[in-house]
Amino acid sequence: MKKIAILGSTGSIGVTALNVIKASQEKYRIIALGAGRNLDLLIKQIESARPKAVAVLDESLASDLKRRFRNDIRPEVFFGSDGFKHLVNLDEVDTVISAMTGAAGLLPTYEAIKAGKHVALANKETIVMAGPLVMGEAKRQRVSVLPIDSEHSAILQSLQGHPREDLRRVILTASGGPFWKSSIKEMSKTTPAQALKHPNWKMGPKISIDSATMMNKGLEAIEAKWLFDLEMDQITILIHPQSIVHSMVEYRDGAIIAQLGIPDMTIPISYALSFPRHDENRLPPLALDEMGMLYFEKPDMKKFRCLDLALKAAKTGGSMPAVLNGANETAVESFLTGKIDFLEIPGVIEKTMEKHRPYDIDSIETVMQADKWARDTAREFLGG
Amino acid sequence: MKKIAILGSTGSIGVTALNVIKASQEKYRIIALGAGRNLDLLIKQIESARPKAVAVLDESLASDLKRRFRNDIRPEVFFGSDGFKHLVNLDEVDTVISAMTGAAGLLPTYEAIKAGKHVALANKETIVMAGPLVMGEAKRQRVSVLPIDSEHSAILQSLQGHPREDLRRVILTASGGPFWKSSIKEMSKTTPAQALKHPNWKMGPKISIDSATMMNKGLEAIEAKWLFDLEMDQITILIHPQSIVHSMVEYRDGAIIAQLGIPDMTIPISYALSFPRHDENRLPPLALDEMGMLYFEKPDMKKFRCLDLALKAAKTGGSMPAVLNGANETAVESFLTGKIDFLEIPGVIEKTMEKHRPYDIDSIETVMQADKWARDTAREFLGG
Repeated sequence: MKKIAILGSTGSIGVTALNVIKASQEKYRIIALGAGRNLDLLIKQIESARPKAVAVLDESLASDLKRRFRNDIRPEVFFGSDGFKHLVNLDEVDTVISAMTGAAGLLPTYEAIKAGKHVALANKETIVMAGPLVMGEAKRQRVSVLPIDSEHSAILQSLQGHPREDLRRVILTASGGPFWKSSIKEMSKTTPAQALKHPNWKMGPKISIDSATMMNKGLEAIEAKWLFDLEMDQITILIHPQSIVHSMVEYRDGAIIAQLGIPDMTIPISYALSFPRHDENRLPPLALDEMGMLYFEKPDMKKFRCLDLALKAAKTGGSMPAVLNGANETAVESFLTGKIDFLEIPGVIEKTMEKHRPYDIDSIETVMQADKWARDTAREFLGG
Repeated sequence: MKKIAILGSTGSIGVTALNVIKASQEKYRIIALGAGRNLDLLIKQIESARPKAVAVLDESLASDLKRRFRNDIRPEVFFGSDGFKHLVNLDEVDTVISAMTGAAGLLPTYEAIKAGKHVALANKETIVMAGPLVMGEAKRQRVSVLPIDSEHSAILQSLQGHPREDLRRVILTASGGPFWKSSIKEMSKTTPAQALKHPNWKMGPKISIDSATMMNKGLEAIEAKWLFDLEMDQITILIHPQSIVHSMVEYRDGAIIAQLGIPDMTIPISYALSFPRHDENRLPPLALDEMGMLYFEKPDMKKFRCLDLALKAAKTGGSMPAVLNGANETAVESFLTGKIDFLEIPGVIEKTMEKHRPYDIDSIETVMQADKWARDTAREFLGG
């Protein structure tokens, strides 16, 4: 029986994770739920999953939540970053699903690892910003950090049963987002509404823009480096617009092992929890004969400058990936609120990176410092 | 150090296997070579690999061979089925590469397993005709029977590291041969020369015709059943004309693990010998971005009646697959010598199967009896 805390239970990953867990009540028990502001959904989740403890964003939300408890299901309520920290430190918890969005997920995830909990990780920023710190601590604590996203789950699955020494490279597939066929000129006219339309996956606004710029794939490449202990030149990115082949591993003999599936987060979430088992679910099988043509092409780095910047930041290492991430979040926000054009996003990130003097990441403080510096600097380039 | 006997050393698999072995002399040593009639090539192989013993088809070839030894490299020479039997029983041999073509491969392969040798198997007929017998003996002797062909090697690779209990089905891919896009009417006019043109692999005449009728894929499905202990309804066949995805395994959660690679037998031969390692080679990597469109479709069983017959024979079990195989070899021979039309091949097999009363396969004699009966009966239908 795995005893689980979910951070970000009301987000799309959290909701799917709760469904996976509900379908296997003999294997999993929810001990704690952490959410942001969506109290309506959180209350339903509490009534269904009956956690011992919950945490929300701030004190006023915590009071609201307590006032709205309707029956005798009354978990302890905590709030803020101390609240999340409390949840992951609960003795009963052995596994933390880290599904908060953005940089806010880093602290509680790192805390969970320090407390010796296994982590199922959907929060990219944790590894992108603090890869060496987080993975180093996981190694010391002997806990697993298993990915909850289709690409890294595909890599994890393609690594099973094949000797690690025989690995040649990892091929990370990318949908290419809505613009893989567009010219740079066409991309220059992109409105936020157009950029938010992702062809294969339903996602939030920030990650949809990251997918349109392919920054998302750059962040995933950095994540792959740390999760699977790779050199950046062992990671190849291929655009695969159909999102059927979720990623691949090439071995020394030229054999490529790939994981394919329908685009449904149930599969990677379930695999991260049941690893190395594949638990039954109610999804329809992938009908390869109805998929039409599958296709792969190299990404054009001149078109997808954000991807190029991410790979460069990973090669530089140290604080640079955190700076890349902070500058990107700031630039994307500016694009979404109409302050800059789509093609100006990489320019802001590049200028911020150029101004940065990278240093080692050896504590959460050094990570947060790089993040704050990047956001402040990017905002300067954005004109305050 | 693996000590290897190759049965069928002068065939295409044998030649490639010798190249693989030569490239890893620190891992493999050739103890024995068995060949048919190609003394020119066999002599070159003897001079290069320096086996202790060799065997050829008959006594006169054995005398010829001995007469042609030019220097002090003089292995012991044996001949005929007793000769091959002697090779696989040599104490120094621990692994036998079974690469003879057709039903002739069955006896020495079975003999190798009985002698407690591991088998790397390219000879389909061994398993198709005598699956229960051969795999039962391998289990008793605790020896491995590892496939040397791209499809079954892909399945083997896709099974590694994933719990067997979680397997849902195996997806065996088929090139579809030269006629996957042709109408039945177009197929009816096929000459042997047209049927011999395979789009992706260079192969001998018998297997090329089997590929054109898709009997080859039916035989592979039967082989997969026995090699991987599957029920026939766990095996799905998909036409994949590009022959890049060599086969796949679908698990209970819907995840599909696939093996991809260039169409070169070096990879499955090397994997069968180095299992579970992937040994380095000099092949170019698979350039997925240069492959164009990959495509999958269900085979039309009305067009590929041989495939349908093979799946039915496998479901019937017992002696029926051996009868299918014997009738097919006889019918293909008749087609190649111009006695029957391409589309008459399945008719001959079907009539032979309909006339057969299946029985259990519990000895080599029962297998050979079914094979002989099938050939005799098919010849009757062919008009003597």
